[in-house]
Amino acid sequence: MNDQLVLHEYSPSGNCYKVRLTAAMAGKKLERREYDILKGETRSPEFLANINSNGRIPVLQVGDRFIPESNAASYYVAEGSHLIPTDPFDHADMLRWLFWEQYSHEPNIATLRFWMRELGPDGLSDLQRVQMPGKRQQGNAALKLMDEHLGGRDWFVGDSISLADICLFAYTHVAGDADFDLQRYSNVLAWIERVKAEPRYVDEDA
Amino acid sequence: MNDQLVLHEYSPSGNCYKVRLTAAMAGKKLERREYDILKGETRSPEFLANINSNGRIPVLQVGDRFIPESNAASYYVAEGSHLIPTDPFDHADMLRWLFWEQYSHEPNIATLRFWMRELGPDGLSDLQRVQMPGKRQQGNAALKLMDEHLGGRDWFVGDSISLADICLFAYTHVAGDADFDLQRYSNVLAWIERVKAEPRYVDEDA
Repeated sequence: MNDQLVLHEYSPSGNCYKVRLTAAMAGKKLERREYDILKGETRSPEFLANINSNGRIPVLQVGDRFIPESNAASYYVAEGSHLIPTDPFDHADMLRWLFWEQYSHEPNIATLRFWMRELGPDGLSDLQRVQMPGKRQQGNAALKLMDEHLGGRDWFVGDSISLADICLFAYTHVAGDADFDLQRYSNVLAWIERVKAEPRYVDEDA
Repeated sequence: MNDQLVLHEYSPSGNCYKVRLTAAMAGKKLERREYDILKGETRSPEFLANINSNGRIPVLQVGDRFIPESNAASYYVAEGSHLIPTDPFDHADMLRWLFWEQYSHEPNIATLRFWMRELGPDGLSDLQRVQMPGKRQQGNAALKLMDEHLGGRDWFVGDSISLADICLFAYTHVAGDADFDLQRYSNVLAWIERVKAEPRYVDEDA
């Protein structure tokens, strides 16, 4: 891993913050390149041809090669650190939370947050508006599942912080931005404080 | 990995087929337990308490522990086989396709297939109906991205079949069930035939 790491990102995105937080926790250095997704800068012909053909960020550049998908990029950055469990069951269990985050958490909590903060009530399409109640219900179901899992344990996998905690933290700790009431989930609140107390923790503005 | 592997599944689900195909390709033995999701058998109090608290299948049982999420379960089954690249970049690139499958492929192609085959035109809610055009457009975008990626290469990652191919194969090769026209994606069609020609390949009825 001598190749320079470059993060192509839109820094307000929680998916991009995952990669930065992982790098901080794993003691890895990242160069950063900023794109404004609201101005379509990741849909330019150059971005689509050279960085990511599906026009999404983050993308991690490793030398002259590219890894899209926030959780895959974070995994690459974390490789070899204490964030990746070595036991095969714990490793698969960690991946389980990463897949769950992308399927059952991010499309609800992160999407609602984006719609409410970046697009705003007047910027929503009818299709977005009609999907909001379902996303709110499923977002609360996701937070409840996390809260129950954290009953009697400090971290999502095994006995110490792992990439699962980092990838889940990114959009969970700001779920209030999308009007989710985190006070209903006391185990989640305590876990958020544990992540923030980690020695190498950085917030999204770092 | 001496623990007995048990797959808790609804066998018509492509997500469950992924785990069976992985096991066949990796030469691993799986015991199988069937649940009818249309009868709510994965939402029973017993299933929620003992197998998976979010009521979804597949779940891989390893001894007395459980791994939900199809791609995480498949990873566990494939661990140590030729399906998991050892090079760190290729490994992360494989994970990238697994996350992409769950975020950009499955929610469009698999969901449309389930709505059309299992629920049927008369069984759809208004909310499902209004989401169909977007899912069709995004499903075609996913197939186009796969087709372009396969231009000039045989497999999704590196020079040989990996878990990325297996997890993408599961819902791609049956996309026609949801009225996606695979004839438009000739590289995808050729890749489907390559997967089927693998010596340990099994189809979804095996």
